[in-house]
Amino acid sequence: MTEDSHSHENEDLQSILERITYLLRKYRLVEGLVRLQDFPRQDLVGSIIQKQNLASLQNVLDKLHPADIAHILEVLPLEDRLFIWGLVKTENDGEVLLEVSDGVRETLIADMGSSELVAAAEQLDADEIADLAPDLPSEVLEDVFRALPLEEREQLRAAMSYPEDSVGALMDFDIITIREDVRLEVVLRYLRRLGELPDHTDQLFVVDRNEHFKGVLLLNKLLVTDPDVMVSDVMTAKIIKFHPYDRAQQATQAFERYDLVSASVVDVDGTLLGRVTVNSVLDFIREKAESEALSQAGLSEEEDLFAPIWKSVRNRWAWLAINLVTAFIASRVIGLFEDSIEKLVALAALMPIVAGVGGNSGNQTITMIVRAIALGQVSTDSTLKLIGKEIGVSLVNGLVWGSIVGLFTYLIYQNISLGLVMALAMILNLLLAALVGVLIPLTRIKLGRDPAIGSSVMITAVTDSGGFFIFLGLATLFLL
Amino acid sequence: MTEDSHSHENEDLQSILERITYLLRKYRLVEGLVRLQDFPRQDLVGSIIQKQNLASLQNVLDKLHPADIAHILEVLPLEDRLFIWGLVKTENDGEVLLEVSDGVRETLIADMGSSELVAAAEQLDADEIADLAPDLPSEVLEDVFRALPLEEREQLRAAMSYPEDSVGALMDFDIITIREDVRLEVVLRYLRRLGELPDHTDQLFVVDRNEHFKGVLLLNKLLVTDPDVMVSDVMTAKIIKFHPYDRAQQATQAFERYDLVSASVVDVDGTLLGRVTVNSVLDFIREKAESEALSQAGLSEEEDLFAPIWKSVRNRWAWLAINLVTAFIASRVIGLFEDSIEKLVALAALMPIVAGVGGNSGNQTITMIVRAIALGQVSTDSTLKLIGKEIGVSLVNGLVWGSIVGLFTYLIYQNISLGLVMALAMILNLLLAALVGVLIPLTRIKLGRDPAIGSSVMITAVTDSGGFFIFLGLATLFLL
Repeated sequence: MTEDSHSHENEDLQSILERITYLLRKYRLVEGLVRLQDFPRQDLVGSIIQKQNLASLQNVLDKLHPADIAHILEVLPLEDRLFIWGLVKTENDGEVLLEVSDGVRETLIADMGSSELVAAAEQLDADEIADLAPDLPSEVLEDVFRALPLEEREQLRAAMSYPEDSVGALMDFDIITIREDVRLEVVLRYLRRLGELPDHTDQLFVVDRNEHFKGVLLLNKLLVTDPDVMVSDVMTAKIIKFHPYDRAQQATQAFERYDLVSASVVDVDGTLLGRVTVNSVLDFIREKAESEALSQAGLSEEEDLFAPIWKSVRNRWAWLAINLVTAFIASRVIGLFEDSIEKLVALAALMPIVAGVGGNSGNQTITMIVRAIALGQVSTDSTLKLIGKEIGVSLVNGLVWGSIVGLFTYLIYQNISLGLVMALAMILNLLLAALVGVLIPLTRIKLGRDPAIGSSVMITAVTDSGGFFIFLGLATLFLL
Repeated sequence: MTEDSHSHENEDLQSILERITYLLRKYRLVEGLVRLQDFPRQDLVGSIIQKQNLASLQNVLDKLHPADIAHILEVLPLEDRLFIWGLVKTENDGEVLLEVSDGVRETLIADMGSSELVAAAEQLDADEIADLAPDLPSEVLEDVFRALPLEEREQLRAAMSYPEDSVGALMDFDIITIREDVRLEVVLRYLRRLGELPDHTDQLFVVDRNEHFKGVLLLNKLLVTDPDVMVSDVMTAKIIKFHPYDRAQQATQAFERYDLVSASVVDVDGTLLGRVTVNSVLDFIREKAESEALSQAGLSEEEDLFAPIWKSVRNRWAWLAINLVTAFIASRVIGLFEDSIEKLVALAALMPIVAGVGGNSGNQTITMIVRAIALGQVSTDSTLKLIGKEIGVSLVNGLVWGSIVGLFTYLIYQNISLGLVMALAMILNLLLAALVGVLIPLTRIKLGRDPAIGSSVMITAVTDSGGFFIFLGLATLFLL
């Protein structure tokens, strides 16, 4: 990360700065921030670069919010990225590492020495170190661990012990605790002595002498209430609280439903452990939605846009292989009917229509069901009702589209039985799609799996092979 | 909505209550809430129903948070849903209508009289009425409008004028404004006089006499600062602010990046209009992610799980029709080569493999690009670089998978040229998929369209028709 290890020519530097300037302009939003407000953007490309004034570039970076630096790093190709990374202030390193995407983080960490990594991690809170931990070399993690004060060491150990999708993984320890048997005036004085409150503090946590959670005092309440009143008289005792092993998904639902800013996390015997804030919920929702969208398309993980080719290949490998296997099976199903196709070659041209529309319809069904499951709208006793409805929809669609397709088939091939077989095959494959579209996610739920993952590949496999089999089978039975 | 218009038998009532009890148990989360804490769940099914004690059921509903009532309504079949809806307290009607999904809201509104709707809407803030407005009959909206005080009438007019995906549509008017030339003590006294602060108040908005926005006073700052200090000395003047016509997407990015709880909205001449809070951002993100997932699967909108069949059919109609058209085109491409297939029927069995793997790989590429665009990581000058990388990935994948598929083809059909043609077709179709996978979203962006919508259908259309054409064309050239 030393600057002189990079031999950046004038032009390189210029193009990086043009890039950054472009980004700053584009995200007009960001202009409101103090950090970006203060430097003369117009002059950047001109004066700074021509003088190769690295110090000025560094000055710009110093004024940026870590999230903005992270964004810039993500957008830059590897070489430029590492060059800029070398200019980022050491005390910002930790925050930036937290903000960048997984793929980019890997490239940054690979570029850092152990001592730099330890220094970066030490800038962070225990819960943040825990987020970073899986990407850190183990000797770095040990050094960080040893350097922490006892309390934070405990927190780090706890934070690292919670499963990825649990409330514990979203939890932080930035809580201010107070007692219930004091006047608000005392609380106000205590806060003034603290001099600063953690971000997202919308409530203070009331505990007894054993750290048992008693309730919360909302800051909004504190502000509007007479300072002579006791905490116990205005605190909210019955309030949403989570256990660290609750599913994170549950917490996000509660935040959405009840519009929370922060919520308390307690262990089984009621000891206050920490809190979850709306911003970690926001991050979680975003990541979850993204990883679902990626896995839907057959990508294992988020990709660094400038990752080397072999890394991208590896990321896309698994699903392509699965897809190839299912395509092979479908191909063998067709292979069973080669004699029929030889006799009536129109079958070859028509069969992909049956398979394709079935796949499309099945994906509609499965998406609806997966979504309803995620929202908790599906219970096992509604399975039959759902199957009934989906079959009804498929029947209507099958009759309508089947007739149209049958008619076209007749018009093209002047063969009325072929048209009828085509129509019937469409109807049957849509029914199959509906049935399997409901059953796949419900079965996965029963087996304790995530109903979303791989659902699209599975339904397409069924409607492809099934569609070919139904159509070619019917044709063999009735036409030959 | 009168109770006696429903002739619910004992058993019906029992099953509804079992359903509700089940839901309450399942969402253990909710137990923390005051609203649910207070009633004896065990007794519900037993005592209440046997006495047909409607009042008790109503009592339960009265204690539930509107979001929980909304959830219960969404999960119940239509008849039960309307029965429960009849029991909900009128003063909760507005909030519940806001919380339910679009499809369910329609069924509830259809069940209500004009005067009930007016009463429900009048419970809400101007920005909330604006959210509801598209679903309200116009005469109801007019009545509501007339009943509002002048200021709120203006707010409603403004809120309804902003486009759906703008910051204005997320904005609310629950702001507390103060002047900069007063001491904090005055502010504190002012707040106490107010007696209550709006939800999500994490900052007060500092304006001058002309309502021009000067900055914000963070509550956290107010709490820790000496009351003798002037507002102007502790307020934050350089702060993120939005214009109502900014894209909502921009606001959500800022909330995520800078971990905001609320942010101010000002018009072009700097007048403070309102604020955006993190909970409306949360709702927006969720809705956006959902509508993308739905459109990805070819559903026009979110579906009420218990919608009548014809409604679901309509919802899925459009994409099925498009899919059918593209499938027809692919079918005609195959039709061009019927002579070749007749001569070598193995082609019919093999061609779906080429098309299928191409579609899968194309979807991977397009998903990655769409995501990168959404995160602002793609600029036009990186187009060539991206195409280069995707083509590289495809080439690797094509060589590997193409060889495997070619080998299998040879093993099955004992025809070495067929194997070679298969391998070559795979490689070419994967290259086509990569090229088109980058170009489709980038072209849509250039045309000012949403790159995500319909991208999957388009790429599949290209890789299907293209795959068939490449494979059958090569086979015709080299094998026959």
